[in-house]
Formats: sequence, C-alpha cells, structure tokens
Amino acid sequence: MTTLDIMPENTANTVTPETMQAIVQTEEKVTASLELQEVPVPTLKSGEVLVEVKAAGVNRADLLQTQGNYPVPPGASEILGLECAGVIVDAGDTDRSIGEEVACLLTGGGYAQFVAVPQGQLMPIPNGYSFVEAASIVEVACTVWSNIGMLAGLKEGDLFLIHGGAGGIGTFAIQMGKALGATVAVTAGSAEKLETCKELGADILINYKEEDFAETLKNQADVILDIIGAKYLAQNVKAMAKDGHMVTIGMQGGVKGELNLGHLLAKRGTISATALRGRDVEDKARIVRSTVDNIWPLLNNKKISHHIDHTLPLAQAAEALQKLQEGTVTGKLVLTT
Amino acid sequence: MTTLDIMPENTANTVTPETMQAIVQTEEKVTASLELQEVPVPTLKSGEVLVEVKAAGVNRADLLQTQGNYPVPPGASEILGLECAGVIVDAGDTDRSIGEEVACLLTGGGYAQFVAVPQGQLMPIPNGYSFVEAASIVEVACTVWSNIGMLAGLKEGDLFLIHGGAGGIGTFAIQMGKALGATVAVTAGSAEKLETCKELGADILINYKEEDFAETLKNQADVILDIIGAKYLAQNVKAMAKDGHMVTIGMQGGVKGELNLGHLLAKRGTISATALRGRDVEDKARIVRSTVDNIWPLLNNKKISHHIDHTLPLAQAAEALQKLQEGTVTGKLVLTT
Repeated sequence: MTTLDIMPENTANTVTPETMQAIVQTEEKVTASLELQEVPVPTLKSGEVLVEVKAAGVNRADLLQTQGNYPVPPGASEILGLECAGVIVDAGDTDRSIGEEVACLLTGGGYAQFVAVPQGQLMPIPNGYSFVEAASIVEVACTVWSNIGMLAGLKEGDLFLIHGGAGGIGTFAIQMGKALGATVAVTAGSAEKLETCKELGADILINYKEEDFAETLKNQADVILDIIGAKYLAQNVKAMAKDGHMVTIGMQGGVKGELNLGHLLAKRGTISATALRGRDVEDKARIVRSTVDNIWPLLNNKKISHHIDHTLPLAQAAEALQKLQEGTVTGKLVLTT
Repeated sequence: MTTLDIMPENTANTVTPETMQAIVQTEEKVTASLELQEVPVPTLKSGEVLVEVKAAGVNRADLLQTQGNYPVPPGASEILGLECAGVIVDAGDTDRSIGEEVACLLTGGGYAQFVAVPQGQLMPIPNGYSFVEAASIVEVACTVWSNIGMLAGLKEGDLFLIHGGAGGIGTFAIQMGKALGATVAVTAGSAEKLETCKELGADILINYKEEDFAETLKNQADVILDIIGAKYLAQNVKAMAKDGHMVTIGMQGGVKGELNLGHLLAKRGTISATALRGRDVEDKARIVRSTVDNIWPLLNNKKISHHIDHTLPLAQAAEALQKLQEGTVTGKLVLTT
C-alpha cells in the first residue's frame, strides 16, 4: 500500500513515500465512520521534521473531535491524534537526525503512518520506554505540568486537590504531586477507584457520591486540578486556601456557573481555564522544554508510572474511540502502526 | 494632650509617650462618630518600629470599615488608616534608625500620632516627595504593582484595560502601564474623566455609558484591572485576549456573576481577585520590596505623578470620609497631624 519505491527529488538523503495510510472520517459526527485510507504524506514546513509513527496515543479530545465537538485549530492537520512516538525519517531544515527516536506533542495528525512535527515539540523517549509507552505519556505530561507546575506553581507542602483522581490525567497528577512533595487529595466515584488513587500515593480520598469535598477541604486546597467545570465552581472556591489557584482543563459538569467574586477575593484566589492544543508553536515548544526538564527525570527514575489499558492496530481507531466512550477503559489506549 | 514628659524604662534611647491622639469610632457603623481621643501608644512587637505619623492617606477601605463593611484582620489595629509617612521614633529590635523618614504600608492604625510598623512595610520617601505626597502613594502603588506587575505580569506591548480610569487606582495604573510600555485602554463615565485619562497617557478611551467596552476590545485585553466585579465579569472575559489575566480588586458592581468557563478556556484566561490588607507580614514585605524596586524609580524620575485633592487635619477624619462618600473628590485626601 505504501510507495517506498518512489524517491522525491527534494529529499535526496531520505526515502519518503508520497502517500501513506491514515485514519480518515468519512461521515461527519459519526465516530464509527473512521477508516484507513491512502492519503498524501504531509509536506514539511520550515522547522518541522517528518516522523514515521510507531505508536499514537488515544485521547478524549479525539473522540470529541469525531463528534464535531472539538474544532481543529486553523492550520492543523485534519487527521486525529495529539501525541505519538516514532522515528525521524526526514529532518527537513532542522538539525535533528534521521533515525532519531522521539516522542511528539502534536496539534493533530498522529493517527497515520507519518506526521510532520515542529522540532520544538519533539521529546526524547524516556529511559526504558517502548514506543507505545512513550506515545501514551506526552499529552498527559505536558497538560498536567503546564497547568500545575508552570501556571499554578505547585510546590512542596501544598495541598493539591485532583478531581477524577482515577482517570488518565488524575493518575499522572497524583504521582507528580507526590514527587513534588505535595499532599494529594482526590475525588472519585467509587471505593475501587479511590483504592487505585491510594496505591499511587494519594493522601486524602474523597468519594464524591458520599461526601462534599468542599466541606472536607474547606480553605485548604492550594492548587486544584479540575475537569468538572461549572458544577464544581462554587465548591472549588470554597475548598481553596488563601492564594489558591484552580485550573480547569475539562468541563464534564457544564460550562456556566455562578462565581462569587467576594468569596474568591477573600481567598485572594485565582481561576484559570486552559487547553494545550490551541497554543502556538512557540508556546508549545516552551511547554515541551519545561516538561522534559521537570517531568522526564521523574519518568526516567520511575517516580511516575503510567498504565496502558491495551493497544490496537491503527486500523481499529474507531473501536478504540468507541471503548473510550463506553467508559470501561481504566488506562491508556494506544494505536500501533 | 500628649505626655512627652514621661519616659518609660524600656525605651531608654527614645522619648516615646505612653498615650497619643488617635481617631476613634464611638458609634458602630456611623462614620460621623469618628473623633480624636487619647489612647495608648502601640506596643512594639519584634521586628516592628514606632513611627510618628506626619501624614496619613485616606482610602475607600477606611470608609467601608467605618460602615462595618470591611472587617479588621485578626491582630491588626482597630484604628483606621492603611498608609502613612513619618519619622521613626523607636527602632525596637530592628536595625532601622531613629529619625529616619519613611513611608509605611499599614494593616491599620494610620489615623493616629504614632503607629507600629513591621520593618518589611517601611519604604523610603520618594525623591522630592513631602510627607503628604508620600503618604498618598503607598496603598495605590503596592496595590497596582502587586496585582498588575507581580500577579498578572503586564509587559511591553500588552493591551492593559483599566476600569475606572479616572479614579485613584486608575490614574496611577494608566501611568504605570505607559511606563511599562503597554497600550492603555480605560473606561470612565464622562468625557471630562476620559480627558483626565488621556492627559495621563491613556491610548483608548471608552465612555461606558455610550459604548460596550467588551465589543470595542473583544479578544484584545492582555491584562484587565477591574474594580466593578460581577457586573463586568462576562464582558471582561469577552474583552480578554489569549492568555489574558483579569484581576478584580473591587466589587462596586456586585459579587455574584455568571462565569462561562468555556469562554474562559477558549482564551486560556485567568481570573484573580485579591486584597492587600489581609496578607501576612512576609507577604506584605515581599510586595513592598518589589514595589520599591519597580515603582519607586518611576516616582523618583517623575514618570508617575499623583494628584492630592487636599489635606485636612487628623481631627477632621470624619469630614474626609464624608467627602469620599459624596464622590466629589477627584484626587487623594490626606490627613495631617
């Protein structure tokens, strides 16, 4: 299916085909309509390298995108996939090397055999990691570190509240919080999920179905990582300590909530809401650099582990997203080429 | 009235009286009940100096306090007054010098002949400033710099939106914004007030009675200094640029507003609400140090000027607050001893 026998004139030192297999959505808003198709290999812009994808991480944002609920940023690939690991096959005009194994933060395009990656979004493969493991860690590491480390400035001794502690973001955030010396509190919806959080190091376990986290943690949370949004807004402000900082990165509980600025002011509190994908190339490079500096040592030293639920061939992308939607996945799904 | 003839045993090298004149509120929630009374001179805690007050700035928070709407932080003086200038008359256990002229950030106690001040809250008198001028600049400088410089990180090229541009906070913030290289937009309620803002350097003038600032500045404001609160919450988020930061320091337009976290996330926006008074001694010292480092050079070089409406004797504190409430004051009111 690939065309490895064709060598374009402008890539004298590499053998890059002109077409590749990639996941294409054939029907708008229908996740099940994803299928493998032959499409052109991306053309490199200045500062980009071409990576042959070995493994691509599956994210909830991919699911939302197939449902028409996550618009592709202007200029980004229409192909799904926000993270991958693989091998550089064309270094373009950069000083990177062909054959270099890399993990990549993507703005799209990971569900394919090849993807064009700005060099600032390349990361080393953590020590002892397979391509599958490396592909599964990029988005979560950059997301959690950029929000909790870089933006909210979590530090030793802080109380760090994580909503959805047993999810992909949560399990990573618990370990990162502990590695940074924070006391970690988590919310989750079952004893089993809380047990998972406990095993990862969480200190305070709150079953949100049985307990009001805001009452338990009133005025105590220095940093809050929120994926719920509106539904928890007032409670998060109540749980906040003086100079607390809450960062919302998901809105599973709605977007519109009442904010009492008087309560926020009494805490000298800060509320941020962010997303990684829409950031520009310079901003992503800044985040990738800081994440590699601060989080890669924790991965290399196995201070943070990461659970792969299972892998599926790239051709079964629709099935992977279906599983994600069913909510039965307890770790990361990764597609392999 | 003072008792300068009495020299307590524990202050061998100074002549500090045991009592002093200070403004005392005799009837709860009645601003007009302020009167000069003889009260004990404050006792110094470790790290504090005793300052003989020459001039004390009048702030809106003082008015709110007399009305019962601004609780005194635990441990703070019940006497009004958040800023003053004067002379050190007892250095306590610090290495400051008796006779040193200082401006002071206070947690209370400025409406008096003497006030105890943590050494971290002492600032030099800016070059060429009188005591009256120095006493009028402390709160506004520390408030604006700590929020806009330290917290929101205003930088060259930013668009800086200031609500209430013609007020005490606003007029200072305009000049600071221009000195830092920002483009300054202001809202105010009359052509006359906007003219004042323009003379101070404001680039974009918006009469909020005639124009929707959020429409005019949609997606443009990098930093917003807000004194309105709930009433402007949605509009401020609309006016915010990518990575924008809004800081609320007043709530003249109410405390409860609807926050659309989806809109905030689309901007990767941040909302903070803060107050200076409740911060602890270490935090105030950190702010004072940074304010002196960053703002004092602008005062010394006359890059920022400050308008004194007029001065009144300390005994007329009630009258001063009455004028503030009437809303006819266009500059700062200062009490002199």
